[in-house]
Amino acid sequence: MDWDIVSRLGEMTGTVAFAVTAVLAVAPQRVSLFTACVMGTITAVGGGTIRDVITDQPVFWSIDPTYIWVALAASIAAFWAHRFFARGKVFQTMLYLDALGVALFAVQSVGIVWRLDFGLPVAPVILGIVTAIGGGLLRDVLAGRQTMLMNEEIYAVPVLLGTSVLVILMSIFPDLWEINSAIGFAIIFGIRAAAIRWNLRWPDWLNSKPDQK
Amino acid sequence: MDWDIVSRLGEMTGTVAFAVTAVLAVAPQRVSLFTACVMGTITAVGGGTIRDVITDQPVFWSIDPTYIWVALAASIAAFWAHRFFARGKVFQTMLYLDALGVALFAVQSVGIVWRLDFGLPVAPVILGIVTAIGGGLLRDVLAGRQTMLMNEEIYAVPVLLGTSVLVILMSIFPDLWEINSAIGFAIIFGIRAAAIRWNLRWPDWLNSKPDQK
Amino acid sequence: MDWDIVSRLGEMTGTVAFAVTAVLAVAPQRVSLFTACVMGTITAVGGGTIRDVITDQPVFWSIDPTYIWVALAASIAAFWAHRFFARGKVFQTMLYLDALGVALFAVQSVGIVWRLDFGLPVAPVILGIVTAIGGGLLRDVLAGRQTMLMNEEIYAVPVLLGTSVLVILMSIFPDLWEINSAIGFAIIFGIRAAAIRWNLRWPDWLNSKPDQK
Repeated sequence: MDWDIVSRLGEMTGTVAFAVTAVLAVAPQRVSLFTACVMGTITAVGGGTIRDVITDQPVFWSIDPTYIWVALAASIAAFWAHRFFARGKVFQTMLYLDALGVALFAVQSVGIVWRLDFGLPVAPVILGIVTAIGGGLLRDVLAGRQTMLMNEEIYAVPVLLGTSVLVILMSIFPDLWEINSAIGFAIIFGIRAAAIRWNLRWPDWLNSKPDQK
Repeated sequence: MDWDIVSRLGEMTGTVAFAVTAVLAVAPQRVSLFTACVMGTITAVGGGTIRDVITDQPVFWSIDPTYIWVALAASIAAFWAHRFFARGKVFQTMLYLDALGVALFAVQSVGIVWRLDFGLPVAPVILGIVTAIGGGLLRDVLAGRQTMLMNEEIYAVPVLLGTSVLVILMSIFPDLWEINSAIGFAIIFGIRAAAIRWNLRWPDWLNSKPDQK
Repeated sequence: MDWDIVSRLGEMTGTVAFAVTAVLAVAPQRVSLFTACVMGTITAVGGGTIRDVITDQPVFWSIDPTYIWVALAASIAAFWAHRFFARGKVFQTMLYLDALGVALFAVQSVGIVWRLDFGLPVAPVILGIVTAIGGGLLRDVLAGRQTMLMNEEIYAVPVLLGTSVLVILMSIFPDLWEINSAIGFAIIFGIRAAAIRWNLRWPDWLNSKPDQK
């Protein structure tokens, strides 16, 4: 019961952070309020929508439209007050809340896909990543921006690591979802938060080396 | 019966207009006949396909492939005769028929989603917008063009207004689909046609203001 | 039985070729190992995933995750050894194997959609093309590259021809799937291989002519 409230609070916090960071990302380009709402909402719910379509489940926001309302409200707020949200401290806080959302939604997705017994063991990891970054990819493609796959930010790999560990733990201790998911969450949030805090980038040897330097 | 024929005629007119305007949009880039057909068809049926996938309904053109044939024929015509279609008066007419298609498909989508009782009240509006602009977004992304979300054209917002009014009317008068949908259609088509006629753009205060002007 | 092994071997060869050519395509841009794996895997399984979602079938890699493992392994190999794979002869071989994959997956898709009795006669052709080029389109869009629809390479049209012939043959000789599909396969692979071998491009009169030359 208590846990449900915490989880719910985390989901809404993540939804707000996804929408706000999305609007801040596109606001420097010249966008209308409508476009800001589309971008914020797509970023917030897009990844989970792709997951539900691929696993052939009812799309989550058709069952509970609260996610849409929260994303819309956050988008409108971020549009009108984007100077406030773009301030150093506020923006930094939003990044950490975004990391929290990424970790929470990825872990939840693993749980959903696991319980569906869908394409184990690889699909929970893939769909965890899709849920975490799919909305942001849609936003970047629609806005004509470089997607996060092509820059050096450490964003999706923590999700890969955390969801992989979670799937391995579930294979060994199938009855310990609470503990396993807490570990997966901690890995994702921990690495992502460290990447934000110390502005970490990929070490050079892990990148392909274009021949013409 | 009579109404069915009118509605059918409107659908095919809208399909033609979607395909023709799509081919005209990409023809200035150097494209093959095949690419023109892909772009025309995706623009004509893409939005409704996304709607059907999200609502887990059979994709509409798998039940009635006429939409595909009409879109293909219109694409081929627009490819070979794109100088004719690009003429001022013809092009203007195509824009109005495109507006008619947008209004018709958006209103139809609201009806479909409403009858499915899918994510009311917000999903009919979202999926109405998706149906109306989803195909055009796919086209722009595949053609490497700026999507309509990033320019100042008034295209999607009339759909937002008309579908929202329609959903509100349906909540109050659930038995008056004919009248309600006519009002929704009139709002979408009216605003969009006015935007075409007087070349309306968003007022400046509704856009985000990049800091470096 | 024997045929199953040959078909399986072909599928895995095609999966490897899709992933390797995808990684080679994005490696000149600066990408991480993670991004290479995402691009390779999306290119290998993306098209079939879209087909399964549109036809409302269980996504093929959720039933048999081997495709994912093979795509991942090929992506990692292509990332670390991209100089080897980029060598003239090796790269040429990869292109032919890619053509083999394209032909095989397109023909298989026609078979799947035909047996589902889904949107005949047009949907098998459309979904054959989607399966063959959908993954590559996703890769190009996510990597910010020009999609193959906008260049003059002869890639998708052989698929259109081969799948169309196959559908026509199936309509006339519904019991001769083996022979019909072999003919469809030969058409796709033959034209595509010829295009690779002699570096064929579209004849000029088949392209739209931009007014400002």
